[in-house]
Amino acid sequence: DIVAALERHFAGGPLAGLKAVVTSGPTHEPIDPVRYIANRSSGKQGHAIAGALRRLGASVTLVSGPTGLPDPPGVETVRVETAVEMRDACEAALPADIAICAAAVADWRVEAAGQKLKKREGGGAPELSFAENPDILAGLAGHASQRPRLVVGFAAETQNVIEYAETKRQKKGCDWIVANDVSPDTGTFGGDRNSITLIGAGEPESWPPMAKTAVAERLADRIARFFGSTP
Amino acid sequence: DIVAALERHFAGGPLAGLKAVVTSGPTHEPIDPVRYIANRSSGKQGHAIAGALRRLGASVTLVSGPTGLPDPPGVETVRVETAVEMRDACEAALPADIAICAAAVADWRVEAAGQKLKKREGGGAPELSFAENPDILAGLAGHASQRPRLVVGFAAETQNVIEYAETKRQKKGCDWIVANDVSPDTGTFGGDRNSITLIGAGEPESWPPMAKTAVAERLADRIARFFGSTP
Repeated sequence: DIVAALERHFAGGPLAGLKAVVTSGPTHEPIDPVRYIANRSSGKQGHAIAGALRRLGASVTLVSGPTGLPDPPGVETVRVETAVEMRDACEAALPADIAICAAAVADWRVEAAGQKLKKREGGGAPELSFAENPDILAGLAGHASQRPRLVVGFAAETQNVIEYAETKRQKKGCDWIVANDVSPDTGTFGGDRNSITLIGAGEPESWPPMAKTAVAERLADRIARFFGSTP
Repeated sequence: DIVAALERHFAGGPLAGLKAVVTSGPTHEPIDPVRYIANRSSGKQGHAIAGALRRLGASVTLVSGPTGLPDPPGVETVRVETAVEMRDACEAALPADIAICAAAVADWRVEAAGQKLKKREGGGAPELSFAENPDILAGLAGHASQRPRLVVGFAAETQNVIEYAETKRQKKGCDWIVANDVSPDTGTFGGDRNSITLIGAGEPESWPPMAKTAVAERLADRIARFFGSTP
């Protein structure tokens, strides 16, 4: 059958026998029954990474926020909407050897998103009460019983990219950070190309701009090298 | 050519010679360069109305927020993102005989959406400062120099639909309100069917649930009757 054929096809890769969980896309956080907070992540980079890890032989679970992308072949894809759902789906995917947090997870959710907000008499702005969302990257990197051996986060910044990314790596406790500049004029969010700096795998490596699929292949190769050299 | 063929095709309808502007879809209001506030409007109802008015012979400008829908044939479609852009595009489409405000316009926008918001030390929630968006429906209904003869608003409610809708009609100064229940269990937002009550064209009329395309055809027929009886 198809599953067995895929297993045979991918069985020989350098990541065969390893399990990866990859997050991708935005989260949508409801404000009320009709409104929500979203972000411009397309999921292209995360989905490409899931596919690249699979092609190197890993068993991959992709936890994806709302995107218009098809599920990558051979990858178990779990579709979620909110950060809390994404955290729960990642937990359910453990144990894993590799965790790649490429999703653009909302830092906050809105509390009490029950009835539709009405404009108030007098025209005052709405009073939104925020709760901090679970930190999925820090949760995986600091997992008490099932920390993946390699935990990789993404840092989407608009200024001081490398500095913020190194700070983030230390604060989250993850191993690598893939730092990219998502300033509107770079076209990274929603676009097909990316220009990243890899932090934590030795000295910072700034890769030239390339297709997101090429970033995914190169990152998967670096991961294979990591596992090849750390038995 | 194609335009001339379309003109000939639509020339004989009951709305021939009339100009309509229709808004459709959600608006996206930026919070910062990567985040935005959205809503679950699909644009299906507004796009269907634009198409139905066109088929009855009207010249139609559709002002659409971000949707995945194709432009209706023969309709001039202007794509916008925010409420302010939608208001400006509607103004630019005047004069018009008919205005149908079917878009789900955000009531508020976020001020100062320049740099990406950072999590604050201590984990506090973000401080978002809201500004009230222009009220496109009230602006058209109360237009000083170019008020369309028929201004129709939509009321998307989750409770007390008719009561809220009649209040809205009077407050906005529009002629008709198409009131619908968008509670999550109705599937109206994003779905293909709608169940509406027409308010302002005589006694409130509750139409049975039907396809959004059928709602559009019936509404276009009611509009043709309005213009046929009020020369």
